[in-house]
Amino acid sequence: MNLSPLPAIMLEPLVRAALLEDLGRAGDLTTDAIVPKDLRATTVLSARQSGVVAGLDLAMLAFRLIDERIESTLECPDGGEVAQGQTIASVSGPAGAILTAERTALNFLSHLSGIATATASIVNAIHDHKAKIVCTRKTTPGLRAVEKYAVRAGGGANHRFGLDDAILIKDNHIAMAGGIRPAIERARASVGHLVKIEVEVDTLAQLEDVLALAPDAVLLDNMSVEELRHAVSMVAGRCITEASGSITAAAAPAVAATGVDMISIGWLTHSAPILDIGLDYRDS
Amino acid sequence: MNLSPLPAIMLEPLVRAALLEDLGRAGDLTTDAIVPKDLRATTVLSARQSGVVAGLDLAMLAFRLIDERIESTLECPDGGEVAQGQTIASVSGPAGAILTAERTALNFLSHLSGIATATASIVNAIHDHKAKIVCTRKTTPGLRAVEKYAVRAGGGANHRFGLDDAILIKDNHIAMAGGIRPAIERARASVGHLVKIEVEVDTLAQLEDVLALAPDAVLLDNMSVEELRHAVSMVAGRCITEASGSITAAAAPAVAATGVDMISIGWLTHSAPILDIGLDYRDS
Amino acid sequence: MNLSPLPAIMLEPLVRAALLEDLGRAGDLTTDAIVPKDLRATTVLSARQSGVVAGLDLAMLAFRLIDERIESTLECPDGGEVAQGQTIASVSGPAGAILTAERTALNFLSHLSGIATATASIVNAIHDHKAKIVCTRKTTPGLRAVEKYAVRAGGGANHRFGLDDAILIKDNHIAMAGGIRPAIERARASVGHLVKIEVEVDTLAQLEDVLALAPDAVLLDNMSVEELRHAVSMVAGRCITEASGSITAAAAPAVAATGVDMISIGWLTHSAPILDIGLDYRDS
Amino acid sequence: MNLSPLPAIMLEPLVRAALLEDLGRAGDLTTDAIVPKDLRATTVLSARQSGVVAGLDLAMLAFRLIDERIESTLECPDGGEVAQGQTIASVSGPAGAILTAERTALNFLSHLSGIATATASIVNAIHDHKAKIVCTRKTTPGLRAVEKYAVRAGGGANHRFGLDDAILIKDNHIAMAGGIRPAIERARASVGHLVKIEVEVDTLAQLEDVLALAPDAVLLDNMSVEELRHAVSMVAGRCITEASGSITAAAAPAVAATGVDMISIGWLTHSAPILDIGLDYRDS
Amino acid sequence: MNLSPLPAIMLEPLVRAALLEDLGRAGDLTTDAIVPKDLRATTVLSARQSGVVAGLDLAMLAFRLIDERIESTLECPDGGEVAQGQTIASVSGPAGAILTAERTALNFLSHLSGIATATASIVNAIHDHKAKIVCTRKTTPGLRAVEKYAVRAGGGANHRFGLDDAILIKDNHIAMAGGIRPAIERARASVGHLVKIEVEVDTLAQLEDVLALAPDAVLLDNMSVEELRHAVSMVAGRCITEASGSITAAAAPAVAATGVDMISIGWLTHSAPILDIGLDYRDS
Amino acid sequence: MNLSPLPAIMLEPLVRAALLEDLGRAGDLTTDAIVPKDLRATTVLSARQSGVVAGLDLAMLAFRLIDERIESTLECPDGGEVAQGQTIASVSGPAGAILTAERTALNFLSHLSGIATATASIVNAIHDHKAKIVCTRKTTPGLRAVEKYAVRAGGGANHRFGLDDAILIKDNHIAMAGGIRPAIERARASVGHLVKIEVEVDTLAQLEDVLALAPDAVLLDNMSVEELRHAVSMVAGRCITEASGSITAAAAPAVAATGVDMISIGWLTHSAPILDIGLDYRDS
Repeated sequence: MNLSPLPAIMLEPLVRAALLEDLGRAGDLTTDAIVPKDLRATTVLSARQSGVVAGLDLAMLAFRLIDERIESTLECPDGGEVAQGQTIASVSGPAGAILTAERTALNFLSHLSGIATATASIVNAIHDHKAKIVCTRKTTPGLRAVEKYAVRAGGGANHRFGLDDAILIKDNHIAMAGGIRPAIERARASVGHLVKIEVEVDTLAQLEDVLALAPDAVLLDNMSVEELRHAVSMVAGRCITEASGSITAAAAPAVAATGVDMISIGWLTHSAPILDIGLDYRDS
Repeated sequence: MNLSPLPAIMLEPLVRAALLEDLGRAGDLTTDAIVPKDLRATTVLSARQSGVVAGLDLAMLAFRLIDERIESTLECPDGGEVAQGQTIASVSGPAGAILTAERTALNFLSHLSGIATATASIVNAIHDHKAKIVCTRKTTPGLRAVEKYAVRAGGGANHRFGLDDAILIKDNHIAMAGGIRPAIERARASVGHLVKIEVEVDTLAQLEDVLALAPDAVLLDNMSVEELRHAVSMVAGRCITEASGSITAAAAPAVAATGVDMISIGWLTHSAPILDIGLDYRDS
Repeated sequence: MNLSPLPAIMLEPLVRAALLEDLGRAGDLTTDAIVPKDLRATTVLSARQSGVVAGLDLAMLAFRLIDERIESTLECPDGGEVAQGQTIASVSGPAGAILTAERTALNFLSHLSGIATATASIVNAIHDHKAKIVCTRKTTPGLRAVEKYAVRAGGGANHRFGLDDAILIKDNHIAMAGGIRPAIERARASVGHLVKIEVEVDTLAQLEDVLALAPDAVLLDNMSVEELRHAVSMVAGRCITEASGSITAAAAPAVAATGVDMISIGWLTHSAPILDIGLDYRDS
Repeated sequence: MNLSPLPAIMLEPLVRAALLEDLGRAGDLTTDAIVPKDLRATTVLSARQSGVVAGLDLAMLAFRLIDERIESTLECPDGGEVAQGQTIASVSGPAGAILTAERTALNFLSHLSGIATATASIVNAIHDHKAKIVCTRKTTPGLRAVEKYAVRAGGGANHRFGLDDAILIKDNHIAMAGGIRPAIERARASVGHLVKIEVEVDTLAQLEDVLALAPDAVLLDNMSVEELRHAVSMVAGRCITEASGSITAAAAPAVAATGVDMISIGWLTHSAPILDIGLDYRDS
Repeated sequence: MNLSPLPAIMLEPLVRAALLEDLGRAGDLTTDAIVPKDLRATTVLSARQSGVVAGLDLAMLAFRLIDERIESTLECPDGGEVAQGQTIASVSGPAGAILTAERTALNFLSHLSGIATATASIVNAIHDHKAKIVCTRKTTPGLRAVEKYAVRAGGGANHRFGLDDAILIKDNHIAMAGGIRPAIERARASVGHLVKIEVEVDTLAQLEDVLALAPDAVLLDNMSVEELRHAVSMVAGRCITEASGSITAAAAPAVAATGVDMISIGWLTHSAPILDIGLDYRDS
Repeated sequence: MNLSPLPAIMLEPLVRAALLEDLGRAGDLTTDAIVPKDLRATTVLSARQSGVVAGLDLAMLAFRLIDERIESTLECPDGGEVAQGQTIASVSGPAGAILTAERTALNFLSHLSGIATATASIVNAIHDHKAKIVCTRKTTPGLRAVEKYAVRAGGGANHRFGLDDAILIKDNHIAMAGGIRPAIERARASVGHLVKIEVEVDTLAQLEDVLALAPDAVLLDNMSVEELRHAVSMVAGRCITEASGSITAAAAPAVAATGVDMISIGWLTHSAPILDIGLDYRDS
């Protein structure tokens, strides 16, 4: 896997905001009152469940932004699989600072690892097929860039990042435009040469119409496996095919077997449970 | 239920950031290209599943921040229950603007309604008992205030909002302080008169020691139902008792029956799936 | 022309920052000292040169953010042509507030109108050909979204908006990748299905190699008109062709006549002179 | 020349914003996909045209904010002249990071060097005269501080930085105040002892009136060389004289020869073309 | 008095930040729990002490940013004098919202009115003399613009607003420059024509040297009344004279009687006690 | 004293904003013009009055944010007492940078040390009694976290940090709720288990009613010493007692002698004069 980290300049504002959200106006009352100022600690982040890791840069940034003397050693990089109980990273430095940053670090790491783990489980389930698993714009407000990164860490690919990097014509657009043809024609006339156009179709009859207008991709929404197989053969490689519509992990292999190019799954980013990760105190 | 809305001044920065995250640098390519500029539309937000609603202020703000001419009528307020297919609100105004704001509005509304729904399901499951359901600091970075609001909308109560509004002494603090007694004594000596002190205990023996130091609350972590019942009788009303530790919806009634005052559940905010809500185009 | 306005939520932060940059810490010393508080004025924005207008939303926002009682009537919308001396808009309201906002409003309007005017002059020069004029990422820091909008207002189209909405493989990437083939293959393997791939080629020999790898577009850099004509026939419609490299307004028609699909011109956004626009006081 | 750098704390927000504008939500797709992660490169910034350099601190900050391991050696500091083809600085470090920051670095550097070059050309053209070249408030929104710095790098001086650091009474102020006398008197009565007052005059008759009121400076707007010479002799050193009004490089020497103290030129900051600067890959 | 309000665009960020600082993550717990949602209230801001009012725009903005339905009527504008017990403004609207905004509104209003009151008391004490009372850069971090406004509301004038709007050469600068002459000469050579130069002098001998270099103003630091009188006669109107150095209200008349032009007083902004103002509930 | 520093991540935004407020758009004109670029200096921060120090982290951050090469040695930490003339810290590095940051550093340090000094003087005056001195929410907008920290540095404790970390029921809330009982009952019903409830009482009769409802604390407002003594005996340890209402340093011992637990004093944060601290140039 070729997983490129996001530049720290993109992550830092998120981590700063999260730390300040937790510190409030008075800081860490408990640690400040109780933990000796000169105590140093070695701690480990370890997986309470097996899964795929994502978000280590954010977690480590949380520690370092509280105290730049905190050091860490990664034992399993983003995109790697961890077994239950396995150490992901060790974190050592001023004990109080580690505890102050702990929850923020874990909130990022467990949320993004949850997304990566969910993605990987479906990617693995369909690995005999060519279909790629892709996410949607149904992301948590403020976290789209890092949630999409977590999908990549899990072996998935990314659909649009926003309203502005591709055209996706849905049923409402078609209705408001007065038909598929004017919708696609207006889209093609208005955008730059590097913007692709994808069109949502709900029936095979619609697909027929759409294919005549040569889109770059078709989103086959809420179709049965049967219909999908039919659609793929109708498309016959003329454009990319994407299956969509509440596709569960269990259903994914059958969908992939229809020969579609992409399967898009919203719950990877909006409903994947966290991967349970904890911080354990080794010694000081 | 007495559910106070959060002031718009707290919500607006979140909604602005989410809209800008989706608009990127070029805005809504699809809508701009396709939807007639003067078209008006009436749409409804409707529940695709039954559940409890939360986040309408954020969703409506998303629409109005894109176009202040968009108007809405709420049919089910935050905290209300909706059946599958039921209308939550109607939204009407310039058609293109509604589509541009749609995903951001739904991302807030479905995420927070998911939290409210999960909370309500557990609150209902234990309604014969006095125990309150409370959330934790395991929230999505950047969204703590609104996720905690969603817990309230679901009938739950809130635990600490951050590191600075109460003392919560956990196992690592105790280990670093060199014992429970110095930990509690230092905490009591350092904080203001309106700050409460809660102490995590893992065994009944620990509980014995802690009770002698008169904390405001004890967090009974990962105890069996048997142990919890024992703990409650040991405490005998001298302080608040909170059960904690991966308590599922199924397990909650038995935990509540032990007589604890609070049951804290992290997954309400970190792993609750969304409540599926969609926007349907009625007519223009 | 179908020119969609950018949502105000994207413009407002730019206008606020520009106004505060001008107001500094003490506000408008001159106006505050001199202009009677209750004086109202009617003023007009008028073109000191002929050209194409862009940026009226930003200019009007500057006035309204200083005093929401300022009202305006547009006489020539964005994308429209104005003759020398022609009125673009009338602006009336509290006299002092109009003067305070004047420079900020004009700085946006004259800069963006300058870009639109430059774009339109080239678009007009090649209107007999199919080629589109496109801008580049050589934009003024902080103003990319609005400068690209100004290019659209002038009749041009937009190239990439940033590093993240399309792949553009340049000479340095090829050198670092160790050749064109690995560069394109790695690109194709890593990006989502809605991301196009364009490759820069400097010679016809390179073009041969690149075409075998089926990119979405080729950027023909610094080629002579002769070479461009040759390149277009080699491509034969298999992908989009873009001519690039310091193409002046005078040279554009000959370049367009080669049959390329796009002509990209950096100076539209980095070096176009302003369109001179002034604010004239009519009466109070 | 005594050119003081602006503190990094003033530059960093601009550079961060510009980098994030280019990185968008997904980062540098091309470099991430293609450039080997461990490749290091040595590159040079070199002038494609002769001119005066300005903005190196911003450019270098762009590289370091993407990767703090990038190192640079300046060969021509801000304010220095470069010949076509000359190296301005060498930049070495992780190859991918250099490419990611390249465009942002060059956008700052070429824009500000363009302003410095334009300024220097006029400063040189009038070097036999005492007149100083000054810029105006016609700057690019958001970049005033650095554009005014670039004017200094080119040997020019700065006029007002905003509405709040000096009084400049223009024709509209005079009209609204009901005459020159009340305008100046109100100005003098209201401002602090370190604020100077300059008054715009369009005719020699107006100048007569204004001089009787002892301003610190007069702005002689759109006067012919003849009129300017007359005006200078009328003023006779009693206040500073500034010539203004679309003065071109060709016209500047004649204007300077009239004996005015300052010549203000708006196009230095609003319409100067960039200085073409490129980044060349030396080796890795 | 001609007191111009600061534009709301300059005030709003301060008020938003202050409200959010008070609301924290959970909002106004007390009001939300207790005050009926539909209760309306009429309240008055009244002076608990006599003094001069400043900051009403900020206070009213605090109320309106919490709830735009809150309305107010000003009975004593900024710069006006109030007697003990007198009503400054009435504020009516949703009762809960008024209580939520109350402390933020009062914190601005009482702080700035405290500065205005302190300023007015000294201005009044020296009203027989020509000297103006001016403030310094010893302001509360973040509040300089509004504190300087409060000084104006109290009848004072403003010294520099920052490091960048005038030259003020102090003892350390002179020491580092190697003497008064090089210090003044370098200053004069480097700044624009609208920037004044003031020089601090500690002795009459220094004053002699400085006057030979024709500064715009001299700051006579920590001189006795005798020395000040001597200094004023030495200056003989050639430049502005400013007395400085811990001048108390009691000492001000004697200092003013020396004939100095300005008396600068740091404690107006750094140590003036608040003017006690309260919000009283009239009825609902 | 156990005084924990606030994390730098909480301080840095305040210091950056304050430095930018002072630098404006042109930076430090005086230093840039006059001080040799390569001059280094050693300076000391010394107390012009005796008092208690607070804010050194902010002051040192101001220096380092202007130039990271500036180094400092603290001689008296936050919370320590300094005599008049005593050195608090030495600061050495590039001379110009030290002068540029000086005023911002001193503005933070002298303001917060003023608060610490005022607090300490009252804490010392009542040291024979158990009562703690606490501050209020009457803080300077934007500086609450650091002003409350300064109170701790002076030996005081903190009351609420905002509207959201405790319930404080005041006279207006009671009036709007229709009585003390509904007010307290609604408060108790709505908040989490770690939130305390304090109730303001103005008379002993009210106190009687309130005590029957078992609040966590009572705020005894504007009571005479006699009444306070009576109140303390009525409470008899059942809840915390807080005396409030314009209590001066002189009056504090008598109030403390009544046996109250807390004395809250608003002027510590809203009206304490600064501690006069200066920066002296030693040598270069």
